[in-house]
Amino acid sequence: MRAILYKNQDQGFILSDNFERGDSRPDEIDVRVNAAALNKRDEFILQGMYPGITENVILGSDAAGWWKDQRVLINPGLQWGNSQRVQSSDFNILGMPTHGTFSEWVKVPQQNVYPVPTHLDWEQAAALPLAGLTAYRALFARGELKPGQKVLVTGGGGGVALLCIQMAKAIGASVFATTGSEEKRGRLKDFGINGTVNYRELEWDKELKKAHGSFDLIIDSAGGDGLKKLIGLTKPGGNIVIYGGTKGKSDGISPQLIFWRQLNIMGTSMGSDRDFREMLELVEQHGIVPVVDSVYPLEEFGRALERLKSKEHFGKVVIKIHES
Amino acid sequence: MRAILYKNQDQGFILSDNFERGDSRPDEIDVRVNAAALNKRDEFILQGMYPGITENVILGSDAAGWWKDQRVLINPGLQWGNSQRVQSSDFNILGMPTHGTFSEWVKVPQQNVYPVPTHLDWEQAAALPLAGLTAYRALFARGELKPGQKVLVTGGGGGVALLCIQMAKAIGASVFATTGSEEKRGRLKDFGINGTVNYRELEWDKELKKAHGSFDLIIDSAGGDGLKKLIGLTKPGGNIVIYGGTKGKSDGISPQLIFWRQLNIMGTSMGSDRDFREMLELVEQHGIVPVVDSVYPLEEFGRALERLKSKEHFGKVVIKIHES
Repeated sequence: MRAILYKNQDQGFILSDNFERGDSRPDEIDVRVNAAALNKRDEFILQGMYPGITENVILGSDAAGWWKDQRVLINPGLQWGNSQRVQSSDFNILGMPTHGTFSEWVKVPQQNVYPVPTHLDWEQAAALPLAGLTAYRALFARGELKPGQKVLVTGGGGGVALLCIQMAKAIGASVFATTGSEEKRGRLKDFGINGTVNYRELEWDKELKKAHGSFDLIIDSAGGDGLKKLIGLTKPGGNIVIYGGTKGKSDGISPQLIFWRQLNIMGTSMGSDRDFREMLELVEQHGIVPVVDSVYPLEEFGRALERLKSKEHFGKVVIKIHES
Repeated sequence: MRAILYKNQDQGFILSDNFERGDSRPDEIDVRVNAAALNKRDEFILQGMYPGITENVILGSDAAGWWKDQRVLINPGLQWGNSQRVQSSDFNILGMPTHGTFSEWVKVPQQNVYPVPTHLDWEQAAALPLAGLTAYRALFARGELKPGQKVLVTGGGGGVALLCIQMAKAIGASVFATTGSEEKRGRLKDFGINGTVNYRELEWDKELKKAHGSFDLIIDSAGGDGLKKLIGLTKPGGNIVIYGGTKGKSDGISPQLIFWRQLNIMGTSMGSDRDFREMLELVEQHGIVPVVDSVYPLEEFGRALERLKSKEHFGKVVIKIHES
């Protein structure tokens, strides 16, 4: 079958036309992939910036497709374990080291497939799992967001960030975002955003605070120099939830601001099986539609990856593998 | 009456022999102070490193003494408010800007006095309130410490740190500490400590990890360069609770370590009325005795302060004001 394989650090990925999969384990089922979405994770793996990278593994964590006569999507988290608090040491994510979804077929444990919410098409369904799971856990399981609270989401055009914005609006929070482009600020208005700021402005944090005050919850994927600004933008007793670190390490973190104001800085990554089920319920209940930025055929995986790297995308970059 | 007043930044404190207090508010009662304890807070105020410092205010947050015929100790937190999560904006601490406890008498709201646990003498009782409240909230209300867990306390000779160690041991946790002196490492053995390390060793964190592994909960009062080491010493899903920042700002904080391991970095300061009540219950139930380093008369407040600043103290530095 056709599949996008991680080859090695020199060659990057290749498109294989006749990849032979091994046998299935007893608990595994075969899903015929209609659409699969890219994640930052795929980009990091191809840059060698991920632990435990192995050669000749099919990339891709997100997919929607057919299992028998059912439209299903896949929870990409394998062996999370029994704790809501943290994943087990056996936890891993579909698409490295386990074969992933940029492929005609994918094997997954039966417990990892769920019916596609009926209001979503293939591309939208493929755009949901990893980003939706991450967003749900960040906002609710970790951030304890309540209706009426004020939440700030950094990097408002990314896949996870957009789902955070949509989910937070859905439950009746006031939602604010930072983005790196004026065009994206405009597009965020379609999602009912309550305020935006361009993080390329030197004093974006002061501008934001002056216009909108402080926040009960901040969802961040950047780290770096921004974290100390986010600490200054958090209400006393408020939460900062970190799910990524694209800007690297953070300096100048003041213990005084953290302890006197009883702040909580919490990490989150992926989510439990329960988080995944609750995320799907929320998406169905509120008719949330993940934003698809663009769709490419498997043969144009390289272009899709360039689109993701460009940071010009707004929502998820999706690979279409089977039409129906 | 005699009292230690904060005078101003040039003069520091003075001992007044005939300080005239104003009238009491209807909800206030008069406590005759037998003993009062020093806190880092007093040192910071005298160095000008505290918000809202005003002149001619009696210093001191901790006291035990007589109210009518009752032996009482005082919760130094005023107007915490109704949230367990964070203090109200009206919150303040006895001893600045409200007149404090280094004085023959102190006025406090009646709801702030509690019976002295019967196993404590005056000095031990005076050593308990601020440090005990801070330690209790850090360990339990914030850190969610459970029996059998492993907790690391930094700066193991300080008043709050010692009470953390005692309380954590009392509920059946395994307790480890960093200290800056070999003498203190020895003394910590009397408290059943499970392991110690000298933080003046360059690679104390590696030494500690090699000997004792990682920790469910870390209680820190230093910040600075240590925080990134503490992050590396925390178990996946673990908590770091920060109640002080004597070493200043922290650099090199890795978002990846925080998010992938689902860590929680939480600030805490003082505690609610409920935290105070629960702290007293724990102290009574387990017969915990706060460690008194040394006792000085009011006339020797300067010497007491020097003792605190020396960092050679082990436990609380106490001022004795009335003998009985």
